[in-house]
Amino acid sequence: MERPVRHFEEELEALQNRLLEMGGLAEERVRAAVQGLVTREPMTIDQVQRGDEPINRLHIEIDERCFRLLALHQPMAGDLRGIVAAVKINSDLERVGDLAVNIAEAAARALTHPPVKRLIDIPRMAEVAQAMLRDALDAYVRRDTVLARAVLNADDELDALKTQVFRELLTYMLQDPATVEPSLDLILISRHLERIGDHATNVAEDVIFMVSALDVRHHAADLPR
Amino acid sequence: MERPVRHFEEELEALQNRLLEMGGLAEERVRAAVQGLVTREPMTIDQVQRGDEPINRLHIEIDERCFRLLALHQPMAGDLRGIVAAVKINSDLERVGDLAVNIAEAAARALTHPPVKRLIDIPRMAEVAQAMLRDALDAYVRRDTVLARAVLNADDELDALKTQVFRELLTYMLQDPATVEPSLDLILISRHLERIGDHATNVAEDVIFMVSALDVRHHAADLPR
Repeated sequence: MERPVRHFEEELEALQNRLLEMGGLAEERVRAAVQGLVTREPMTIDQVQRGDEPINRLHIEIDERCFRLLALHQPMAGDLRGIVAAVKINSDLERVGDLAVNIAEAAARALTHPPVKRLIDIPRMAEVAQAMLRDALDAYVRRDTVLARAVLNADDELDALKTQVFRELLTYMLQDPATVEPSLDLILISRHLERIGDHATNVAEDVIFMVSALDVRHHAADLPR
Repeated sequence: MERPVRHFEEELEALQNRLLEMGGLAEERVRAAVQGLVTREPMTIDQVQRGDEPINRLHIEIDERCFRLLALHQPMAGDLRGIVAAVKINSDLERVGDLAVNIAEAAARALTHPPVKRLIDIPRMAEVAQAMLRDALDAYVRRDTVLARAVLNADDELDALKTQVFRELLTYMLQDPATVEPSLDLILISRHLERIGDHATNVAEDVIFMVSALDVRHHAADLPR
């Protein structure tokens, strides 16, 4: 095999950069799907529905990178936890990509009906979810548990917005059957956005686990082999 | 540290048993939540809402086991892939446990209204999702890609049932506003069940990836160190 073994640190940095790239793509797709809904642009929504190939490619590449790092370098303690965290974060980001597609699908259906109301809470939910995702990945790269904990707290706002969206749309549905179908899709979109927040929360929890375990690194080194 | 290093094979088997235990718990909780909905028993539903502690404990324990196996035994190729797969499967099973709680929450709300209809498709969805989960874990333990592929195919039935549930409940909602709220919760439950199928699909995909990579194990052993 002629594949060169690159320096471990260099490989770790490449892994981190790929995760950031994937996070950026996922975030952008969520943004585009919700923007397409708000401005009622089927073209934008259609692009999100069909464009998950780059994220899926990155998903496979990152998994392979993690596996290669584990197999070739047999990292210990903090590095090991960082790579295991990357495996999990990779799964979470892939699901966020899938959720962007789900949002786009529901948005496409919603656009076949007249608007139920001016959308305010749903774009706000998207903003919060995107910021959570961005912060969680920053926390991973910087090993920043304070930022990671801020992500966990932000989930409350998302939850409150979701409840508000639900209550408001329910009122419309009860008053006017013509709003039932598009309202259902808006409710589903709010659930998808909530789940994106859940994935950001998972990432933040992984960061906390990874970093706090650095403190026990010397204990791990003491373990009998 | 006085913790004994158990034999690697023994530790791997313990890991597998814990994953099966967790899968069994998750499956049982999904079953109970849907049964509580169908038979309208708030007690059963309440137990599911409050009983996710054992799964959460297993989630942490399995993560620690995987980490310990990676750190202390530095496994190669097939074993390494098996442990990385276990990390991912562990996350999937934990989410299934969360979804059982979500189903119970929606079921509790649904029970505050008169029944919309006799439930047939939702219990069927639960059966399919539970079977997918069980088969995916069996496939993991037996390294059985044929069974894993069968899990991927079963997802189509779940998807068809979800669409059927949605269409039928939509008809009720459009005809009678009194059915809007409980129908909404039934639709959410069908989405949660669909997601359980997605998690089983993830597990099955991990199994295929893990086993098919066994074939390239000798290549991996050739890589420069």
